[in-house]
Amino acid sequence: MKRLLLSLRFIGTGYHGWQVQDNACTVQGEVQNALERLLGSRPAVTGCSRTDSGVHANQFCCHFDTGKNLPPETIVRALNHYLPLDIGAVACREVSGHFHARYSCCSKEYVYKIYHSSVRDPFWEGRAFLTGGPLHENWMNAAAAAFLGAHDFKAFCAAGAKPGDTVRTVKHIRVEREGAFVNLIVEADGFLYNMVRIMAGTLLEVGRGKIPPQKVSEILEGKDRGQAGPTAPAHGLYLNRVVYSFDDEGTRKADFHG
Amino acid sequence: MKRLLLSLRFIGTGYHGWQVQDNACTVQGEVQNALERLLGSRPAVTGCSRTDSGVHANQFCCHFDTGKNLPPETIVRALNHYLPLDIGAVACREVSGHFHARYSCCSKEYVYKIYHSSVRDPFWEGRAFLTGGPLHENWMNAAAAAFLGAHDFKAFCAAGAKPGDTVRTVKHIRVEREGAFVNLIVEADGFLYNMVRIMAGTLLEVGRGKIPPQKVSEILEGKDRGQAGPTAPAHGLYLNRVVYSFDDEGTRKADFHG
Repeated sequence: MKRLLLSLRFIGTGYHGWQVQDNACTVQGEVQNALERLLGSRPAVTGCSRTDSGVHANQFCCHFDTGKNLPPETIVRALNHYLPLDIGAVACREVSGHFHARYSCCSKEYVYKIYHSSVRDPFWEGRAFLTGGPLHENWMNAAAAAFLGAHDFKAFCAAGAKPGDTVRTVKHIRVEREGAFVNLIVEADGFLYNMVRIMAGTLLEVGRGKIPPQKVSEILEGKDRGQAGPTAPAHGLYLNRVVYSFDDEGTRKADFHG
Repeated sequence: MKRLLLSLRFIGTGYHGWQVQDNACTVQGEVQNALERLLGSRPAVTGCSRTDSGVHANQFCCHFDTGKNLPPETIVRALNHYLPLDIGAVACREVSGHFHARYSCCSKEYVYKIYHSSVRDPFWEGRAFLTGGPLHENWMNAAAAAFLGAHDFKAFCAAGAKPGDTVRTVKHIRVEREGAFVNLIVEADGFLYNMVRIMAGTLLEVGRGKIPPQKVSEILEGKDRGQAGPTAPAHGLYLNRVVYSFDDEGTRKADFHG
């Protein structure tokens, strides 16, 4: 048996998130279908995280075990043949049996894409959150700095989520304008349920002048979900990058870019 | 009655081109449906060009006449409500009664988007032409220079197209790499049927080393469709920009950017 790490890209619009559920189309289910056609048996596939319904991925990683001895390039090519067109296989590599797509992950980066315009763009329909009116990305960027470092992010976790450890470490965060887009880019060691979408919803209120930038650190310290902004819609969110340490294999810590 | 110039963006995948046809879904038909709901009667809508089935538009212009006195911003907002999500209204302005979306057009710019990769990307599915293997964009750019200026483009016109004047003037042309994309950008006073797609198919052969760059001017001079490369697929092609002279209204020549 060998363990393979697979890197995917997908448009989340047509899926009820990653994780297999009864009577719902999921990315994990489609990947298992495609692997079953390729390998002749249906492997268990473990993802780097659950993603919500409608959330996209520029990079999503998962692992599975197989006794078949196929070169990784062949697996990528075959999966791109069997997978639906809104899910693509990008890369595949063999990893040690100790590797785990979720637990070996040192950090993940999400991007929340805001399309700042008074008119919709068909090419970005369902792929970015459209908002018009004044939006000050510099206020948003200043406010986002409050999230840097280790904090209890209870105020930025969906109400009703399983209670438990709500401390996470944000390694990098910034809000930047790229033409008509205002992007929130955040890398952390882990994320709570809806954390980036609540951050985005709160920073949008800051950008619109409804919450003063300096108030965001108070909201964070207050640990009260009710004080943060609304949960921004799923269709603006992308899992952008998954970072693994491959130390256990003697290679130095590096992104898995395929 | 006043004449209005409307600027659109659309994803061509779901449409049999611009022009209304029996038993086929077209962009013109959808625009007329939306205008009928807004204005209470169905206006004739004249486009800047016919586009092929599956071709996209970053900008497409059309005009129509109405007795209704609605502000252009209201028309844009209402159309974005009534139009399907893969067609967007970008801008609207009143023009003189002499203005014609097709005949007042001084030039149009097309972009042919080549996604140069060995693996497909779900986000570009149906929105760029995927090709792997070696592709030398510098050879393509050198060859493209042969098209500059006034030429008889008969060799770059679909066989079976209506015979007639096949001279067009290419004002700007270049092939440039942008990350994994190789884009052919061409502006001309007009285009023959399939002209950009045959140019793209021929330049792709140049980029792959199958046609020497210097041979393209011979192909052009030969006026034989059989000597040029294949017609590249519709889904890589975008009408990118439509340029009007507004001289007849006393304003200086300018792009209509809305």
